[in-house]
Amino acid sequence: MDRGKRWRERRRIAKMITAVENALPGHEQILQEIYKKTGNAYVIGITGPPGAGKSSLTDALARGYIEKGLRVGVIAIDPTSPFSGGSILGDRIRMNELSTHPQMFIRSMGTRGQLGGLSAATHSAVMILDACGADVLFIETVGVGQSEIEIVKLADTVLMVMVPGLGDDIQAMKAGIMEIGDVFAVNKKDLPGADKTKIELEAMLSFLPPREWRPPVCMVSAMYKEGLEELEVAISEHRKFQADHGRLEQRRMRNAQEALLAILRDKMVLRVKSDDRYEELLQRMMEKTIDPYEAARQLMEGLDSCSED
Amino acid sequence: MDRGKRWRERRRIAKMITAVENALPGHEQILQEIYKKTGNAYVIGITGPPGAGKSSLTDALARGYIEKGLRVGVIAIDPTSPFSGGSILGDRIRMNELSTHPQMFIRSMGTRGQLGGLSAATHSAVMILDACGADVLFIETVGVGQSEIEIVKLADTVLMVMVPGLGDDIQAMKAGIMEIGDVFAVNKKDLPGADKTKIELEAMLSFLPPREWRPPVCMVSAMYKEGLEELEVAISEHRKFQADHGRLEQRRMRNAQEALLAILRDKMVLRVKSDDRYEELLQRMMEKTIDPYEAARQLMEGLDSCSED
Repeated sequence: MDRGKRWRERRRIAKMITAVENALPGHEQILQEIYKKTGNAYVIGITGPPGAGKSSLTDALARGYIEKGLRVGVIAIDPTSPFSGGSILGDRIRMNELSTHPQMFIRSMGTRGQLGGLSAATHSAVMILDACGADVLFIETVGVGQSEIEIVKLADTVLMVMVPGLGDDIQAMKAGIMEIGDVFAVNKKDLPGADKTKIELEAMLSFLPPREWRPPVCMVSAMYKEGLEELEVAISEHRKFQADHGRLEQRRMRNAQEALLAILRDKMVLRVKSDDRYEELLQRMMEKTIDPYEAARQLMEGLDSCSED
Repeated sequence: MDRGKRWRERRRIAKMITAVENALPGHEQILQEIYKKTGNAYVIGITGPPGAGKSSLTDALARGYIEKGLRVGVIAIDPTSPFSGGSILGDRIRMNELSTHPQMFIRSMGTRGQLGGLSAATHSAVMILDACGADVLFIETVGVGQSEIEIVKLADTVLMVMVPGLGDDIQAMKAGIMEIGDVFAVNKKDLPGADKTKIELEAMLSFLPPREWRPPVCMVSAMYKEGLEELEVAISEHRKFQADHGRLEQRRMRNAQEALLAILRDKMVLRVKSDDRYEELLQRMMEKTIDPYEAARQLMEGLDSCSED
């Protein structure tokens, strides 16, 4: 089956993602089947502080790729309510014509809470959309916390979106995330202070240890559709740079490692929780008759006697 | 040795935290020794978007507790540069008289990147400061990502700090984190829009599923020292509520579980990476001759034959 044909089976794609997101029975088989077909999509991670307009910019970029005839997937990472377990932004998903465009597939992924499985589930969703024919894939995060950083690290190119006027404290934030950005965009470039933000970003980038790739800072307006082509060119140049220098292979190797560890973490948690002594050890921790390291040691030993799940 | 005496051995406390933060040899023994002495400190998690003034508010609250004669610990979570491995905000740590006050102990904790060990290390630092005599402990995060949420969940009371004027997108953010807040503070209450922010917060809180504890929204100014007493009272009331309803025990049980799982995740990653087949399986993943789930399955089997670390 060709990639274009797989892409048209939208309901099938949606069902596969739901299966991996909720770790439904059979989800591992799905990935085993599609894994060989992955590796064709170019993955762009989009992050930045809240209020930077990441969703609008993703949509604007996606539209550009669609106009070039490409198939575009968007995975929007969406914080899950820790209580209800439901996705919070689910109904915020773009209510525009893009979401029903045949070349477009938008999916919101919730954090699954307890198992910390977002990273594994996002990896899986990327693989599914990739195998099912996406040419370009966006992973878009809500915030810029440590787990968001983990997630955008799945991307081939990380686009960091900034805006003018986020205040002083944001500087610290920037410092923490500057290093993972391959391409920078200052969105809402019509706002006062946009040029200053660009200059500040470039100054901060100049403080980073010298690297062969120097991240460009693009001025854009998602709302007024300005600077988008330049941004797309910057992303293409980063892609070409990586291909020319053997970096894409290297990056995907690191991503494969992250995917593997994420799966292992999930599996380990499931196994441990099904261990008969788990509740008892927790209770003893509460009574301070055992410390967490000793409890962990006993449970690690327990893994040996567990049958395969 | 009484708690006050242990608290005065500042260098010893600092060394213990460094040991757990960097997983130095002997760090597990440290925790095994102090674990019995934990459970006396009241732990307050502080989170909220960048720019909300979390550090200033933590300092202002800490000062209040110090004036009451209490010993106060602050653990500031600090994003680590994924490349250099160094702490980014290390030198941003408060340069004020509080940091050298004998009742105060401030510690910045970096994310350790690869192992994802921040959660385990933060748990450990909380236990050390608790065992060494802290009466009140603050865990302060930089952002409001998923991992920050994991971390503040270690707290007995989660204080969510907001500010006016963070823009529209922040609403979505708020929605994602509303449910973990036990007490809300609108900082910089002198800024325009502060009342509106309070009203919005209260409206959003009213949409949450009804719970016995209704989180109060306090108007404060860390800078002008306004509203701090009311905020402290709100925190005390939450503490009392939990004690009266057996919730503190319940919450600490959940935290013990998180601590245990965090340790197990770290241990598992270390073990797997020392498995001879790890590199080979990764290489096969890259060649698409094995899928990540099958690779994970083989490594899980490998855990059985590993000797204890």
